[in-house]
Amino acid sequence: MAQKPSIPKGTRDFSPAEMVRRNYIFDTIKEVFRLYGFQPIETPAMENLSTLMGKYGEEGDKLLFKILNSGDFISKVPQQMLDDKNSNKLTTKLSEKGLRYDLTVPFARYVVQNRSEISFPFKRYQIQPVWRADRPQKGRYREFYQCDVDVIGSNSLLNEVELVQIIDDVFKRLQINTVVKINNRKILAGIAEAIGEAERMIDITVAIDKLDKIGLEKVNAEMVAKGISETAVEKLQPILELEGSTQEKLDQIEQVIGETEVGAKGIAEMRTMFGYLENLELDTEVELDLTLARGLNYYTGAIFEVKSKDVQIGSICGGGRYDDLTGIFGMPDVSGVGVSFGAERIYDVLVQQDAFPSESLETTRALFVNFGEKEEAYCLPVLAKLRKAGINAEIFPESAKMKKQMTYANRKQIPFVILAGDNEIEAQKFTVKNMESGEQQLLNAEELIKILS
Amino acid sequence: MAQKPSIPKGTRDFSPAEMVRRNYIFDTIKEVFRLYGFQPIETPAMENLSTLMGKYGEEGDKLLFKILNSGDFISKVPQQMLDDKNSNKLTTKLSEKGLRYDLTVPFARYVVQNRSEISFPFKRYQIQPVWRADRPQKGRYREFYQCDVDVIGSNSLLNEVELVQIIDDVFKRLQINTVVKINNRKILAGIAEAIGEAERMIDITVAIDKLDKIGLEKVNAEMVAKGISETAVEKLQPILELEGSTQEKLDQIEQVIGETEVGAKGIAEMRTMFGYLENLELDTEVELDLTLARGLNYYTGAIFEVKSKDVQIGSICGGGRYDDLTGIFGMPDVSGVGVSFGAERIYDVLVQQDAFPSESLETTRALFVNFGEKEEAYCLPVLAKLRKAGINAEIFPESAKMKKQMTYANRKQIPFVILAGDNEIEAQKFTVKNMESGEQQLLNAEELIKILS
Repeated sequence: MAQKPSIPKGTRDFSPAEMVRRNYIFDTIKEVFRLYGFQPIETPAMENLSTLMGKYGEEGDKLLFKILNSGDFISKVPQQMLDDKNSNKLTTKLSEKGLRYDLTVPFARYVVQNRSEISFPFKRYQIQPVWRADRPQKGRYREFYQCDVDVIGSNSLLNEVELVQIIDDVFKRLQINTVVKINNRKILAGIAEAIGEAERMIDITVAIDKLDKIGLEKVNAEMVAKGISETAVEKLQPILELEGSTQEKLDQIEQVIGETEVGAKGIAEMRTMFGYLENLELDTEVELDLTLARGLNYYTGAIFEVKSKDVQIGSICGGGRYDDLTGIFGMPDVSGVGVSFGAERIYDVLVQQDAFPSESLETTRALFVNFGEKEEAYCLPVLAKLRKAGINAEIFPESAKMKKQMTYANRKQIPFVILAGDNEIEAQKFTVKNMESGEQQLLNAEELIKILS
Repeated sequence: MAQKPSIPKGTRDFSPAEMVRRNYIFDTIKEVFRLYGFQPIETPAMENLSTLMGKYGEEGDKLLFKILNSGDFISKVPQQMLDDKNSNKLTTKLSEKGLRYDLTVPFARYVVQNRSEISFPFKRYQIQPVWRADRPQKGRYREFYQCDVDVIGSNSLLNEVELVQIIDDVFKRLQINTVVKINNRKILAGIAEAIGEAERMIDITVAIDKLDKIGLEKVNAEMVAKGISETAVEKLQPILELEGSTQEKLDQIEQVIGETEVGAKGIAEMRTMFGYLENLELDTEVELDLTLARGLNYYTGAIFEVKSKDVQIGSICGGGRYDDLTGIFGMPDVSGVGVSFGAERIYDVLVQQDAFPSESLETTRALFVNFGEKEEAYCLPVLAKLRKAGINAEIFPESAKMKKQMTYANRKQIPFVILAGDNEIEAQKFTVKNMESGEQQLLNAEELIKILS
């Protein structure tokens, strides 16, 4: 009957040591979110498939984890469908619910469903796991946490600016050096329009993105190969050769796209944003990056991406402005902007930088060694006093061998061990051993509380 | 294309106001758990069905949410099974994973899988949602949180005692008056054996359970009707008429069951436990309750149940000792004891008692009213200072009508609103309005920080 236990591939258990580190990241992020006036919500793990399907493209639909209907589900499937054996079509008859794939669609659904109770602009954060039936690989999991922060119901660019401040504040606290790359969908649309290729924005952006890697000539060749006219490619050259400060770059871009309506709007937005940012004391580098093409299919204004400057890894935070997230659920014209922090990658960066704090408030601070009934009775009232003073403390639950108890303290990284035998009891004191230095002190209960606080 | 959005029945969204209250409960519970040396773990939402099936009885197997296999799942189902249309059997071919049903089985799986890294006794807590395809009704959800705390790998009764201390401490902090009812499976087994009906322990317990409601005579009649011999029922009478203190009750029971091995052991365990408990300063009432039959099929020693004394509701915490939880995963003879706090019911008790704290550190403390560009520029540096001082603060992102901004502050229950127009800017001050009292003060930036800290 005994089975060798395992967990589904792409999922993970988190040990106490990992939990302490993960909570450090989540707590830091939450604290900053709250500092900026954001409030938490949570949504169910399961959503109706009608809410989820069609929101993440065809590939996304396939990657949704679907819940098998309960009860006698098979009797509700038409015989013809069973005969056809088309798994895709059968899914719609076998499943009505799926696990959430991200936090954005559930948030949009939440806003529409609760719009009468929400006071806009709605500043919410949400830190919950999401699930994707992706092929698991190093650093990619089927269950992972997202940490989303969004403002919905305000067009003000101050929101974009505050998100950059939040990014700066979070990574300052986590001691990660970052660069925030910023782009604007309207500028990209302006470029495509100005060079007479309004429909080819994505092809153009994808090509520009390769500039660093393959060089100007090959980028031009690729665009021509993709059917973009030579005239258009020529008009694009000043933008490919952008140099100087953000101001200078914006000036140069403006010369190309300033006469398109969308382009002029994009330039104006970026000038306002960078104007705000210049007046702030930011630790993070902030950079205009026209090659940033993240989420181009739904972002409508600013686009953000954050990279670690010291550790080679994908982006550790990203987001942008979306002008019609809730439209699909029947609530049009509500603009929002938000970013999502990648907790798993941030964890990896902190591991590589060895930048997790060594002390943790979450672990046990002191262990009473258990020498037997009499000694236990002597220790228990003081143990209760320590806890009353807010000190995490415990007693080994049985009078096991000294070595076993010390090993327990070591493995649990408990910094202080308290011993009380006949001598201590007679003197009404306790021997406290600092497990790192090995130093021992003989203290009474009050001194004990003081040293452990 | 617009859909009216909804969520699956039995699931819930949590608004910011609800999150604050839920976090208050979770944070209180976690703080106490840590105070007693417990550490958190987390396990995946999905487990292999081989881990979950058969652990919760036939009914439980049905109530598991199962994940539909990805890809072309139908081609892997034998034609014969499709023709038979037996949903139960088909499930095994359509699904390999399920959502966790409780935290106990995943914990047992975790312990066995990670035994080489775990330092025993392992004191762990786990606060995560679980899912059950139960019929939703008032107070019963398909997604709900469990808060489990267990010690595994120690037989010491000190663990049982510490769990009672934890219960006492948690509910003291939450200001809920409770009674902790304690029973022992070994005493129940001893009773059944002593009256010559060793196999009928559960029938006997179920009947005893009704004593308060239907009275002694009807209880006796029910036992006889269930086939328990009249001699046995007669022998049981002293136990049904138990009176007095816990000590006196134990003495009376001992006279009946003291000669059975299991009964004597149960009595000894309870004497030890209550001996410890008498020496502690507990706020909660603790009571021996022979009618407590919770989880009789897997508990092997102490059984706990906690009730609110002021609010009529089911148990708000419960648990017990189980001697072989990990055996089913191939790791026999590891004893554990634990309790689970019912966060949803605790929430309901606190709502009914109106006992949630009114102040919350999680909400915004001050809102700057936005009067326009110049005023905004004057406020932003001070806003940054407030945040640096750890004060949750925000500025309304656009210069909307005053009424809109004040409504926003009211609905978000922001206690202070800060106004700065021409007069304030000239005086280099800020008008601070206490939203509850209506009182206004004119302060400079330093005074502002002081008053809001």
